[in-house]
Amino acid sequence: MNIYQQQITLPAKPRGFHLITREVIRALPEMANIRTGFCQVFIQHTSASLTINENADPTVRQDFEMFFNKIVKERDPDYKHDYEGDDDMPAHLKASMLGCSVMIPIRRGELALGTWQGIYLCEHRDHGGGRSLVITAWGQ
Amino acid sequence: MNIYQQQITLPAKPRGFHLITREVIRALPEMANIRTGFCQVFIQHTSASLTINENADPTVRQDFEMFFNKIVKERDPDYKHDYEGDDDMPAHLKASMLGCSVMIPIRRGELALGTWQGIYLCEHRDHGGGRSLVITAWGQ
Amino acid sequence: MNIYQQQITLPAKPRGFHLITREVIRALPEMANIRTGFCQVFIQHTSASLTINENADPTVRQDFEMFFNKIVKERDPDYKHDYEGDDDMPAHLKASMLGCSVMIPIRRGELALGTWQGIYLCEHRDHGGGRSLVITAWGQ
Repeated sequence: MNIYQQQITLPAKPRGFHLITREVIRALPEMANIRTGFCQVFIQHTSASLTINENADPTVRQDFEMFFNKIVKERDPDYKHDYEGDDDMPAHLKASMLGCSVMIPIRRGELALGTWQGIYLCEHRDHGGGRSLVITAWGQ
Repeated sequence: MNIYQQQITLPAKPRGFHLITREVIRALPEMANIRTGFCQVFIQHTSASLTINENADPTVRQDFEMFFNKIVKERDPDYKHDYEGDDDMPAHLKASMLGCSVMIPIRRGELALGTWQGIYLCEHRDHGGGRSLVITAWGQ
Repeated sequence: MNIYQQQITLPAKPRGFHLITREVIRALPEMANIRTGFCQVFIQHTSASLTINENADPTVRQDFEMFFNKIVKERDPDYKHDYEGDDDMPAHLKASMLGCSVMIPIRRGELALGTWQGIYLCEHRDHGGGRSLVITAWGQ
């Protein structure tokens, strides 16, 4: 059983949902040594998140941004944590609804993603800056 | 450390939430060789998802379907991705809210689920068809 | 590759969101033997959940409780599963929105949490009682 790990920083992206499947694969070339196993991607932040969804039509990612803005409102007068910007508390909530990690099986030497699955970086802040990921793969 | 993996296709199920704990256990009998470890179930789709919840009363699963239909509306005029059916974009959103994998510890040779926990397949489409799962267990 | 596992019961906590990072680390001191690997925390219940979010300002956790109460209403007349208390069905729904496990990479012998990340126990019931966790770490 082998384990490989890499920490990378993705350059700042605009608020919204972004495909990062290629960046993840490129960051850990040692993954090629694994025939059966896993790749986990973990984001070390609380106002951005990771999910897996449709990898083809960019309007899906735009609808994600629209939808999560609708259900997690900014400037809700009930927020107590309101001093880091209107986008801050909603970003924390969205991050926990979507999650801070994804784990993808490796099968026959490749990420076992479905045809239409891609990894999304979900940037919930207006100016989130670079985002740090820990990518780990293990298996045999 | 041993690792076992199996890809299976679950036959088409109606839109809604379905218990699949037994199907998962049956699909990977080699799990019996693991005393301490994990079982991960990963769904290779973006309009169906997996979660763990109450395994006894079927009305819980019906309330899940009712609730997620309420908060993720069909025919929202703000959807841009609207040409694959009214149920398509909502299905993508629900899939990311619930997630595409579950990972259960194996303890003393058994899935360490709580008494009331079962694995749900969450079918978000009206006619989703068969659903492909990758089931992987590892440990010692 | 080594694997360590521990089952613990956290004492009953009030409804709301609670930081438990320290309890998790304390429960599995063998984690110190792992340089690169993972720690998974799994909750064996369907009306409490786990997530990772901001570890500093307690108002963030209060806003989590406020927000999830807003979007997952109690006493929705459409609930069919309504005989275990007003807080029961909403608790199941919140538990699946947030998830029943978190998995954190271990890097250079430590949990690779970001500066602001902590593990939350999300208690969705008014009187949930003690909560059982299975904590597993593995790696080399």
